Amino acid sequence: MFKFIENGSITSVCGIKAAGIHSGLKRKRKDLALIFSEEPCNVAGTFTLNKVKAAPLLVSQELINKGGKVKAILINSGNANACTGDRGYADALKSQKHCAKKLGIRQDEVVISSTGVIGEYMPMHILKTGIDTIVNQLSDDGGIKAAKAIMTTDLVEKTFAVKVQLSSGEITIGGIAKGSGMIMPNMATMLSFIATDADIDNSLLKKLLLKCVQNSFNKISVDGDTSTNDMVVLMANGVSGIEIKENSKDEELFFEALQALTIEMAKMIVVDGEGASKLITVAITGCNNDEDANTIARTISNSPLVKTAIYGSDANWGRILSAVGRSGVEFEPEKVEIDFDDMSILGKDYKHDFDEEEATIVLSKDKITISVNLNAGKGNSTWWTCDFTEKYIEINATYRT
Amino acid sequence: MFKFIENGSITSVCGIKAAGIHSGLKRKRKDLALIFSEEPCNVAGTFTLNKVKAAPLLVSQELINKGGKVKAILINSGNANACTGDRGYADALKSQKHCAKKLGIRQDEVVISSTGVIGEYMPMHILKTGIDTIVNQLSDDGGIKAAKAIMTTDLVEKTFAVKVQLSSGEITIGGIAKGSGMIMPNMATMLSFIATDADIDNSLLKKLLLKCVQNSFNKISVDGDTSTNDMVVLMANGVSGIEIKENSKDEELFFEALQALTIEMAKMIVVDGEGASKLITVAITGCNNDEDANTIARTISNSPLVKTAIYGSDANWGRILSAVGRSGVEFEPEKVEIDFDDMSILGKDYKHDFDEEEATIVLSKDKITISVNLNAGKGNSTWWTCDFTEKYIEINATYRT
Repeated sequence: MFKFIENGSITSVCGIKAAGIHSGLKRKRKDLALIFSEEPCNVAGTFTLNKVKAAPLLVSQELINKGGKVKAILINSGNANACTGDRGYADALKSQKHCAKKLGIRQDEVVISSTGVIGEYMPMHILKTGIDTIVNQLSDDGGIKAAKAIMTTDLVEKTFAVKVQLSSGEITIGGIAKGSGMIMPNMATMLSFIATDADIDNSLLKKLLLKCVQNSFNKISVDGDTSTNDMVVLMANGVSGIEIKENSKDEELFFEALQALTIEMAKMIVVDGEGASKLITVAITGCNNDEDANTIARTISNSPLVKTAIYGSDANWGRILSAVGRSGVEFEPEKVEIDFDDMSILGKDYKHDFDEEEATIVLSKDKITISVNLNAGKGNSTWWTCDFTEKYIEINATYRT
Repeated sequence: MFKFIENGSITSVCGIKAAGIHSGLKRKRKDLALIFSEEPCNVAGTFTLNKVKAAPLLVSQELINKGGKVKAILINSGNANACTGDRGYADALKSQKHCAKKLGIRQDEVVISSTGVIGEYMPMHILKTGIDTIVNQLSDDGGIKAAKAIMTTDLVEKTFAVKVQLSSGEITIGGIAKGSGMIMPNMATMLSFIATDADIDNSLLKKLLLKCVQNSFNKISVDGDTSTNDMVVLMANGVSGIEIKENSKDEELFFEALQALTIEMAKMIVVDGEGASKLITVAITGCNNDEDANTIARTISNSPLVKTAIYGSDANWGRILSAVGRSGVEFEPEKVEIDFDDMSILGKDYKHDFDEEEATIVLSKDKITISVNLNAGKGNSTWWTCDFTEKYIEINATYRT
């Protein structure tokens, strides 16, 4: 039993403060966020699989893998501190140290994260002055400001929170995220910071996070590219006094709520994908196994031809079937059925006597589900993607300038 | 020793006639092509790896794999005859049979091919009437008309021919091709029909074709998608009287010429890629092996972020390095060097003190080479791709309507 909190964010969680300010890394918009918990938090993280990893990501990955407790997460936008070599790594450590000092906590209690342009050194004087300022702005309702400060080409901030009724009381999970460009499968895929006031140990926290990320952030696609800086961090401060033990009914309840939260955050990232005008749910069923279904869902979700057809509200099922065909999965084409929402577009034996006008109406909506049934087995997988528009090109042809 | 023939095409080859007409499958443009050799030809082909295969492709693949000789290739555009089930397969056989009858040859001497919209039945009365007309229009200089007739969203017809000096005389290789959308790696990738008047047996023909396709049509990318109808066919009518034997010096000379021809055809397909404004050569060197280099070249060539940056003449080397990073290949990021043409953009240890304005000038050209050196070994691979523009979206959002 869980329910979403209206306008909820990471600061909906008891004991979590946050802030978001303009420090000067960007020209005008907010560019520095801080999340803080007075109580030390257990913590889990997932990190980009890109071989090129940004300096702050390496620092935080090492820190979280060590398995201690943390109290703060410092995130800047405007500069990724990636491909910056030894100097970039030293800068990352310096910003972590400076933030810890200003908060009066240990350096290894600060997770750090950056997003923005690759290959430029961090202007440390700006960042340090920003840290000096932001530590004094932490507040119990700063979650939305923090969400705004981690945006790059995002158009809207992404914040969510849920309340979960457990056997011995109520706990809260809240988070902020950013996405937009370089969104891609099989990776941590973007930035997301989630907190809960439940009391969960590190190993269970990690298990729950990995499982949830697998079915949410790892099943979205905007353009098939992947960032050097992607990470998802989940922290638990235990302030509610409610402990969640492994293999309990409460674990199940918490998992359901965390999964719902991460799926909503993932979908929100797709909706706000660069240039996107439509959210496309790609639901694959009837495969020999889940892995096949996942491969097909990923191939369709990444196909420019499918994504441009949906943009044009064109019921071009041939492109969908063709994407299934090149996915590498074995199947019988004449058994495939394709629906757009509840409307049958392709039946067995290539039957497709649907009404084109009606299909155009379905495809003109801003949320569409493409269902593909291979009629072979019980394997299934659902992905979320967006359409491909001129706006994506415009944004990405001119990003640095 | 070989040289390209100006305005050469498949009919530059002795004994090869061709024609291209408007039959009515499309509203106005040419839509039916016929290639014919009085002398029976040895023949080799490569075919799409898409699991969804068009009916005419299945018919031709079976025919060519049987290993006999052929005399004609019939190709229509405007309708792919793909995803059309038993009726589509029967239609393919009927068109093959009708064409053979009108030419006075055996049915199994006719290769057939289709390209266009998926999932619509072939209007057989139009196609048959078209065949009745086209057999009377075959001519010694019909190659360019045939090339025009196989176009879909292509803007220009693609024809090439080379003369090759062998030990005992001169032979010719000529071809036509179409590409534009659904161009993608590891497949036959588009339509190309090539003829030579050299005398080459089927097994050597197949070996030479596979090797050449591997380094040309299989190393281009427009959008990472793949068609259900792609094929490359190479026919040899032996009219020159010059035989090429396996493991001879002549085989080498012929291979070099065929490779040059197929690379030029592949590049022409990329240049005319949907919405493309620039030809990008992606040259990867210094890898542990060729396979790694190929994986990296493919990942860069398919990256929407790289392709949009080049469109915007933005020297965003971070996106290139990030694409290398997510390719799955093991490497040391700090050893990577990136050049645009002769200009160093990224040196070892992330050195990048290039002049931005100068880089913009290099990137504003319509032909650019991106060189990436991993400085690890001797493996290398070269791919060709194009930039990603608003025009691609426009073309593909409205293709059927």
